[in-house]
Amino acid sequence: MRSVLLVGGSDSGGGAGLQADLKTVHSLGVHGSCVVTAVTAQSSTAVLDIHDVPAASIRAQLSAVLDDLGADVVKTGMLSTAAAVDVVSDAIGGLPLVVDPVGVSSTGQSLLTPDALVLLRSRLLPKALVVTPNLAEVEALTGFVVHGPGDLEEAAKRVHALGPAWVLVKGGHLDGPPTDLLYDGRTAVVLEGKRVATRHTHGTGCTLASALAAHLALQVPMQEAASRAKAFVERAIRQGYAMGKGPGPLRQGGVASPA
Amino acid sequence: MRSVLLVGGSDSGGGAGLQADLKTVHSLGVHGSCVVTAVTAQSSTAVLDIHDVPAASIRAQLSAVLDDLGADVVKTGMLSTAAAVDVVSDAIGGLPLVVDPVGVSSTGQSLLTPDALVLLRSRLLPKALVVTPNLAEVEALTGFVVHGPGDLEEAAKRVHALGPAWVLVKGGHLDGPPTDLLYDGRTAVVLEGKRVATRHTHGTGCTLASALAAHLALQVPMQEAASRAKAFVERAIRQGYAMGKGPGPLRQGGVASPA
Repeated sequence: MRSVLLVGGSDSGGGAGLQADLKTVHSLGVHGSCVVTAVTAQSSTAVLDIHDVPAASIRAQLSAVLDDLGADVVKTGMLSTAAAVDVVSDAIGGLPLVVDPVGVSSTGQSLLTPDALVLLRSRLLPKALVVTPNLAEVEALTGFVVHGPGDLEEAAKRVHALGPAWVLVKGGHLDGPPTDLLYDGRTAVVLEGKRVATRHTHGTGCTLASALAAHLALQVPMQEAASRAKAFVERAIRQGYAMGKGPGPLRQGGVASPA
Repeated sequence: MRSVLLVGGSDSGGGAGLQADLKTVHSLGVHGSCVVTAVTAQSSTAVLDIHDVPAASIRAQLSAVLDDLGADVVKTGMLSTAAAVDVVSDAIGGLPLVVDPVGVSSTGQSLLTPDALVLLRSRLLPKALVVTPNLAEVEALTGFVVHGPGDLEEAAKRVHALGPAWVLVKGGHLDGPPTDLLYDGRTAVVLEGKRVATRHTHGTGCTLASALAAHLALQVPMQEAASRAKAFVERAIRQGYAMGKGPGPLRQGGVASPA
């Protein structure tokens, strides 16, 4: 069984964070191990509380997984403190790394400290096989502002200059069909999607990065893995559902035995 | 969409705890919200570290979920401290409650403090719709030792005297076919299973209690819900897989899109 080590925050609402990650890789037939860096109290409309897990616990979780279960791919999401970034950077060695540079929740709260952002950029991105910023995260990482689809390639180049082997810029927050761009330092590949008319998109970014990590763990090549991850997310958005007063979650995968 | 609020510990290995819970309810088509009470560092052979999440964070998570998403059923697993038991007891009001009285991990470590056990017995069990102890947990809760299948009914009566409406005693650790017993204070129903020849049973208890909670959330009556939960676990054990040096995890549900 292939496995992905998922590193990130718990979303009490179950729609984003490690919960979205785990449901995604599980539904793709890949084992998910989970290192919790932060415990968030989230409703569908706000992040109400964040408890940062102590670095010693993060280190112990990483050792417990990597020394025994191992991992084919490591995927990081919310790394709220500089200590968390440091501990993760130290532990993962040369494993293939998918970095979702989670900066701000979809409900608007900042999910990492300024010094965690600095370390994420300087320590983790150079180790990344692929990094998956949305447009706000491109700006936080590089200062570059994307105004339209024509800016996606320049955005990818700016992020690529920080050291990852590949960049997948997510343009979904622009108007029109959701367009992403995959870049490896030489070639830019545009990935076109279809806009789904729904407000239930909680967990979209986590689901994309985890689906990408799962496909990479299954040894699918990068461009195909990115296409499949994008298709997986589109299907999951179509299956999204209401839960709470704000945007509901995606539905990753099918139902095993309807009851 | 029906939902279960899952309250318990994170298993870094991804095979038990909230991870098993979430995969179970998700694969049964039920939304899972997650309140993290403890962050454990676990390999397949040992619990290496436990970080107890502060009571204020547990309280914030419970409020974030219950004030916005709500829950059809609450399922509790690892409640490692007396404060955690108190906060959960206070928050859940009259919601249908499934208590898996997690006392000792399958690798032998105690997962709760002595005063947490006292409060679990005195505060949480009287509120429970159903409690699902294994034989070690029956002994921890009541002092009664089960030596064979003939003792299961007396075990259920002893636990029932602590206040829950129903008791599901799990006899799987006895020799022979795994036999559970469901008791409501009047009638004892024996649930027979088939022993699966495998060592990959990590997360069995969590999966059973979560499958029971999911079926109850889907408004399946208790006896039928217990039968379906037992069948779900048996199928998940058959689909279990190696991961790490010790017993591997169950596989809850199928693969959505083989890649």
